[in-house]
Amino acid sequence: MLEFSLFGQRFSQQAGILELMDDLGQASEGTDIVSMLGGGNPASLPEMNLVWRRRLTEILAQDGELEALVAQYDAPGGRLGFRRAMADFLVRNFGWSVGPENIAITGGSQSACFLLFNLLSGRFAGGERKKIQFPLAPEYIGYADQGLEPDQFVSHKPLVVEEDSSFFKYHVDFSDLTIGPETGALCAGRPTNPTGNVLTDDEVKHLSRLAREAGVPLILDNAYGAPFPSIIFEPVEPYWDDNTIVSMSLSKLGLPSVRTGIVVAPEPVARAVASANSILNLTNPGLGQALVQPLLESNALLELSARVIRPFYERRRAFALETASRVFGRRFPYRIHRAQGSIFLWIWFPSLSIGSRELYRRLKERGVLVVPGDAFFFGLPPSEDGWKHRSQCVRVNYSRDEREVELGLRVLADVVEQAESSSGVSVGA
Amino acid sequence: MLEFSLFGQRFSQQAGILELMDDLGQASEGTDIVSMLGGGNPASLPEMNLVWRRRLTEILAQDGELEALVAQYDAPGGRLGFRRAMADFLVRNFGWSVGPENIAITGGSQSACFLLFNLLSGRFAGGERKKIQFPLAPEYIGYADQGLEPDQFVSHKPLVVEEDSSFFKYHVDFSDLTIGPETGALCAGRPTNPTGNVLTDDEVKHLSRLAREAGVPLILDNAYGAPFPSIIFEPVEPYWDDNTIVSMSLSKLGLPSVRTGIVVAPEPVARAVASANSILNLTNPGLGQALVQPLLESNALLELSARVIRPFYERRRAFALETASRVFGRRFPYRIHRAQGSIFLWIWFPSLSIGSRELYRRLKERGVLVVPGDAFFFGLPPSEDGWKHRSQCVRVNYSRDEREVELGLRVLADVVEQAESSSGVSVGA
Repeated sequence: MLEFSLFGQRFSQQAGILELMDDLGQASEGTDIVSMLGGGNPASLPEMNLVWRRRLTEILAQDGELEALVAQYDAPGGRLGFRRAMADFLVRNFGWSVGPENIAITGGSQSACFLLFNLLSGRFAGGERKKIQFPLAPEYIGYADQGLEPDQFVSHKPLVVEEDSSFFKYHVDFSDLTIGPETGALCAGRPTNPTGNVLTDDEVKHLSRLAREAGVPLILDNAYGAPFPSIIFEPVEPYWDDNTIVSMSLSKLGLPSVRTGIVVAPEPVARAVASANSILNLTNPGLGQALVQPLLESNALLELSARVIRPFYERRRAFALETASRVFGRRFPYRIHRAQGSIFLWIWFPSLSIGSRELYRRLKERGVLVVPGDAFFFGLPPSEDGWKHRSQCVRVNYSRDEREVELGLRVLADVVEQAESSSGVSVGA
Repeated sequence: MLEFSLFGQRFSQQAGILELMDDLGQASEGTDIVSMLGGGNPASLPEMNLVWRRRLTEILAQDGELEALVAQYDAPGGRLGFRRAMADFLVRNFGWSVGPENIAITGGSQSACFLLFNLLSGRFAGGERKKIQFPLAPEYIGYADQGLEPDQFVSHKPLVVEEDSSFFKYHVDFSDLTIGPETGALCAGRPTNPTGNVLTDDEVKHLSRLAREAGVPLILDNAYGAPFPSIIFEPVEPYWDDNTIVSMSLSKLGLPSVRTGIVVAPEPVARAVASANSILNLTNPGLGQALVQPLLESNALLELSARVIRPFYERRRAFALETASRVFGRRFPYRIHRAQGSIFLWIWFPSLSIGSRELYRRLKERGVLVVPGDAFFFGLPPSEDGWKHRSQCVRVNYSRDEREVELGLRVLADVVEQAESSSGVSVGA
């Protein structure tokens, strides 16, 4: 019988991200999912689709453009024209000190993170092992299995601060955050998938200072954030410095299928990403770069993010929050993470005893997909194994239409209520 | 100063594939390359471009098609519709016993090979290490650096058989081919990049039998081969069995930039590829699958391969061979590998003393890019270090237009002649 390598065993086991994507695949293939609030698929926005339609039509109309789009391998780090446009965009709008040599294109930001994490942590020539350190758990489920070595990630339990009405928010516990020689890089999402948490400008500067003092880079995953698609509802500044690696994506502009990630990094890192990418993947898909380059050059991407994308998700968020409040009422205890960005509600049921996996399973049986929260708490020290909170949360994607979101939240309420009543929890407990 | 992991050091060093892609990138960005015979970029065929133009126009015209194309994540192993179409195509035309569960889509066949090689070789749970075994060196340069572990590939010195006129051919030396416990899989290109060698049906069956007896799978890389794009000038059968993994690509249909690889494999392998792919890359670019699916369903892909693609490259090959013969004449000794498939001439200069790297450098100075041959001989045992042949070959891509191919071959002849005359070689030596 066929035996897989250690890599094979680790990378073919049931990973959180795989289950998630399988669910997504099933949903898009039309199984009986009535409310698809799992996965990270962004909404299909008519106005953005029109932009892509117009660009494709332009490409078809211009002599040689289609041929350049499909029939040519790019350089491994991305098309020079696109990298120039990207660098100019960042210099012009935000004053970052970057050129095309700081930009590396990858086949999506998932791929960018795989490369970055394994370039900066794992086994080292001197025999030591280093880890990627996440200052704030929970973090993106898709990171959890990306280490080529076991236990390549370490994360920190957040301060859980309950806010007024039904909200709460995680904060970085800086008192717990020391960066030792076993750290290869700091990493945080901004906004964070799954919680919608947005690190403040001060928190980012604090992390940046700690990273610099420790001699390790800070990775900021801006897949949902600034400068685009700007699904971020707080007034924050896009951040980069010469010790920071920013990962961006075209996915949440409504282009998840073009698989285009953008790494902005110190030149040796950008070069290493391009190099490793060429060995693993030869080069990148060209469609995303071709569609978006003129929108970088004209700054239309900023305008579309501010006028179309952010307001859309802001409306969806408002609807989801209002609906949760209306549907959940006082039927059971719950708190929602302050939804400052991304396309998710992160809902905590403080007296949920069945665990988020079982909750997920019961919801799936009723045709509602969410993502169970426990898999986002990877990398915590074993001393936190008993921390109940980590199995009491679910991630709900609110980008689907209102009917589907309302239906999903209704079923969620029913299932949670039933679970809590059978375990004897009363409201206010 | 930033320190990279072992992975980082290995995957960011100057790899053969990186140099190749950098050259390609520079060429496409318009540096002073007058004859681009390096790289593996296929030709941009007007008739194929018309097919893609028509498909894109169709997609734009059909309600919701563009949205499905750009705005949705696929399932990690590829779109079920595409995988079904692919499996049906293989069953209908070649009688392979496959279903969609045997198909895994990746972001290109480079990416597929990275996953396959590292699933099947490297470090194992029992502490042992296994290798990918290439029965016939030279092999594709892009494999050479793909092992996560050092020395993950082993290859075999071929039998070098001189044929009439100016040809030669490599043959698998089956007398040298034993498959021990240190082998994780056999692998061969068919046709082989760089040489254009096509394993005969008997050789493939022999390899398949050896692999099965040893309990390891056989990987056949058909990126240039059958059933599409069919850039193969010998009457051979596409081969698959339940111990064989076939890797295919859309690139050589004229779609290198869509990054779509297709793995046909025993189900556990297809599943492992999909799983590892989802962890590394989340999912695949959708454009290639969307463009090609109807052409699989209608069998048009076979017809286009036979009527458009193969004849085009057959004409180019004839031109390149005729030109080489005319331009090289009797100015220096040379032999060309029997060009049975792929888009390359593999030229051996039996009295070249400067080595193929230096030849490459001198050609590049004169604006002609080829790929030096030595990097294709990875994995040979140290006892073959002194084998001169391995530094006497270059790979020439003949897919560019005739003027460019002729120019490149003329400069190649001048540079070789000059090198040989200054080292005192006379014709016939």
